Amino acid sequence: MKTHFDCFPCFLKQTSRTGIILGMDDKAVWKLMKMAGTILSKMDVLNPPPRNAVAIYDMIAENSGRQDPFQEVKKQSTLHALALFEELEKKIKEHPDPLAAAVRYAACGNVIDYGVGSTFDILDEIESALEVEFHHWEMERFRSRLHQAEHVLYIGDNCGETVFDRLLIEIIGKPVTFVVRDGPIINDVTLEDAQMAGLDKVATVISSGCRAPGIVLQETSRQFRNLYETSPLIISKGQGNFETLCDEKREIFFLFKIKCKVVAEYVNAPLGSMFFGSMTGPNSNAIPN
Amino acid sequence: MKTHFDCFPCFLKQTSRTGIILGMDDKAVWKLMKMAGTILSKMDVLNPPPRNAVAIYDMIAENSGRQDPFQEVKKQSTLHALALFEELEKKIKEHPDPLAAAVRYAACGNVIDYGVGSTFDILDEIESALEVEFHHWEMERFRSRLHQAEHVLYIGDNCGETVFDRLLIEIIGKPVTFVVRDGPIINDVTLEDAQMAGLDKVATVISSGCRAPGIVLQETSRQFRNLYETSPLIISKGQGNFETLCDEKREIFFLFKIKCKVVAEYVNAPLGSMFFGSMTGPNSNAIPN
Repeated sequence: MKTHFDCFPCFLKQTSRTGIILGMDDKAVWKLMKMAGTILSKMDVLNPPPRNAVAIYDMIAENSGRQDPFQEVKKQSTLHALALFEELEKKIKEHPDPLAAAVRYAACGNVIDYGVGSTFDILDEIESALEVEFHHWEMERFRSRLHQAEHVLYIGDNCGETVFDRLLIEIIGKPVTFVVRDGPIINDVTLEDAQMAGLDKVATVISSGCRAPGIVLQETSRQFRNLYETSPLIISKGQGNFETLCDEKREIFFLFKIKCKVVAEYVNAPLGSMFFGSMTGPNSNAIPN
Repeated sequence: MKTHFDCFPCFLKQTSRTGIILGMDDKAVWKLMKMAGTILSKMDVLNPPPRNAVAIYDMIAENSGRQDPFQEVKKQSTLHALALFEELEKKIKEHPDPLAAAVRYAACGNVIDYGVGSTFDILDEIESALEVEFHHWEMERFRSRLHQAEHVLYIGDNCGETVFDRLLIEIIGKPVTFVVRDGPIINDVTLEDAQMAGLDKVATVISSGCRAPGIVLQETSRQFRNLYETSPLIISKGQGNFETLCDEKREIFFLFKIKCKVVAEYVNAPLGSMFFGSMTGPNSNAIPN
């Protein structure tokens, strides 16, 4: 999807919030805001928002002198989620439909995101995860695809959420390749972060080759693109990956919480609701499968 | 008050909304958005937001080729409010406390504003105007000041709202000077708009000398500043006038609906609540009177 008018104010909100999270003083945050203004004035708005976000976050990293501004936030998110691991693993195993339960938990893990919203209560989300309404819920289609698949490509999103992904990957019970960002951006998962979450114990972890907080295909590595083209089943976590892949013609199972109005309008679902499904399936207005 | 980090995204939201209201196509609105980015990159953030808004709205006017982009919107707002005039005049006269009722109606007229919020339902607001909770409500102090005053300076805000101001001015029953913007900006009242609302029948209408959607004192005319310094009682309508005058040391009765979080935090009142009072009185944290 292309950048929307409303993405411009959002980029500025993300800029000030990041500056504040980093403990920068007002003068330094204003410098970021003004530089963000210059970036907006030159932005290629045909790009999807996550691709355009790279310039914003690079500018913040450069000015804050911190290559990985969310390093500590990411670590805390992962540790926090890891503390819930055994309890959730038990809940999933005891559930009458462990696969559906694991999908729901993996979706609720997506509330951990410092990029768009700033407040979340992961424990509340977990309590309601098994009851929450999904606007799209292509579970049976997914189950059928999974049954036939010999391999799954799983595109990761944020740190902390990764621990919930690990639980779903355990239940999937097939060889999985887990894809991370090529470098630090917001609180998105990198190789190092994935290892901390224990994803290397259940999947082959590879970089997408792309630094954006999404999958900009033309910027990904040959290894990733090869897997992307040949994998019988792809799971894409989070809104950033959705924004960059939603117009692709191949079937992808998107699993995410709808965090902004632009995406809510795009999929015609309420803001804050959960999405699990493809953009090419019978429930979509896009290309029929 | 100074420009806040959150004013930057708001300037961009106002830009796209104005472009859309003007019926501009996507390409033209994107041009406005990018030019707004450049304006933000050079903005003097020590200025109050309404002073900084001038560059944004000048840029929109220049690019849209419309010197008064909200001309039709302003006219419709005024006509819509005029249609309610007699009914409201009757309600006020029949009320046990006509002055308090007129103040409440004048506040509710302040919901007519295309600058910050975009949706309003004036009839709903009128229904609840007499019951609505004011976070600040310095009515007795105002009554006492009015009793002593030989003249009132009344600083206007938006078109449509002006009709409600006229009702309050009728009840005030003292010589009133009504102040308008020096030129078209958003839906703010100009000399021509004030005449359409019939304000010239109840007050002396003058320009502030300043084009901002607020009162930037150093840009006002000598005539305005003289009145500002000598008037025993000043009523200031709307958030824009508040933002530019709230740090002044003289007593001013601000009457407005709190339309954004930045101002809500500034006055420590809930977003959407009503404000009637001074920043120098006993209920304020500012300089005691």
